Amino acid sequence: MKQGKFIVVEGIEGVGKTSNLNLIAKFIQEADQQVIVTREPGGTPIAEALRGILLSEFDEETLGETELLLLFAGRLQHVEHVIKPALKLGKWVVCDRFCDATYAYQGAGRRIDIQRIAALHRWALGDFAPDYTILLDAPVETAFERILKLRDLDRIEKEKHSFFERVRAQYLEIANSHPERYSIIDAAKPLEEVELCIKALLKDIVLTN
Amino acid sequence: MKQGKFIVVEGIEGVGKTSNLNLIAKFIQEADQQVIVTREPGGTPIAEALRGILLSEFDEETLGETELLLLFAGRLQHVEHVIKPALKLGKWVVCDRFCDATYAYQGAGRRIDIQRIAALHRWALGDFAPDYTILLDAPVETAFERILKLRDLDRIEKEKHSFFERVRAQYLEIANSHPERYSIIDAAKPLEEVELCIKALLKDIVLTN
Repeated sequence: MKQGKFIVVEGIEGVGKTSNLNLIAKFIQEADQQVIVTREPGGTPIAEALRGILLSEFDEETLGETELLLLFAGRLQHVEHVIKPALKLGKWVVCDRFCDATYAYQGAGRRIDIQRIAALHRWALGDFAPDYTILLDAPVETAFERILKLRDLDRIEKEKHSFFERVRAQYLEIANSHPERYSIIDAAKPLEEVELCIKALLKDIVLTN
Repeated sequence: MKQGKFIVVEGIEGVGKTSNLNLIAKFIQEADQQVIVTREPGGTPIAEALRGILLSEFDEETLGETELLLLFAGRLQHVEHVIKPALKLGKWVVCDRFCDATYAYQGAGRRIDIQRIAALHRWALGDFAPDYTILLDAPVETAFERILKLRDLDRIEKEKHSFFERVRAQYLEIANSHPERYSIIDAAKPLEEVELCIKALLKDIVLTN
């Protein structure tokens, strides 16, 4: 059986990841391929329990390196128990964020050394990587304005404009360093235009597979 | 202020770790040193939450490598938030198991490649290590007989005699490879004799510090 493909959607909050993930899944289904949609961090019972710990408030600071160890622990379960088995069965896997989010958020955002992340990444996953990654890119201001239409920014989001600027810049750097597997979509455009871009891209990926 | 010392007690179940940990702490206090007793895995709120995940039953196998990532995540919090700060304040730290338990249980016991453990160990903790480690060593049969006086063996303990043989052998190998920081105590002897051995050892360590 032909192996499925692993597609990741990356980007900061407010760029429209959720609605575009669903669009991508629908497109793949309409091309008569089976598809599962999943997310990081999470995706299995153990990974979701670890996501819970990452989101909990403890009377103790979570060290940046501890966060990395937990992210890769959940990711390893997710890869071995969900992603690889689905691909093996010929299914496509569409995932909301994957390893590059760790370089962007923990690396550029929280300023953990990129080489340290890369070493742990190799230790945990070897050379397993997405077949294609779609980066939904928009200026931080635009993304924040979209969030504001849905809800107030929380204190952290308000304070951390520069944090998200670093995250966005890191995403762009990774995407530009891996043009063979990355597509950058201008997510500042109206949603209908973004959808047209994604459909054009998927036509290439899905229909030529 | 003079830095405290970090003492670890290692050994399989049934060799008397708990009662000897308390003996060691008491001896250090009586030598007018401050001491804290702690344990692995655990020792901080986040590390205890991770211990909870390691001990939980999930509808999903915990991969050996995932277990390693979680053990070192909890250990890193424990080292940075409990052990190092106490040592810096001049306190002695007596810990129920530490990294060598991972080589013994996950390495020899669960047959995870020792080099892979060593790579993650270095990644997480660098060269931080105990000042002294006391290995309480006894034949698996003797240890099991002691457990049986307190409670029935559970199914896993009954089945896994060879598992504990591998764990014990690995502990002995580590201890013999690091004679400068390891003492092997024959824990098959009656408790009073074991206590005399430990007291003699501590006299060297504590009173000459």
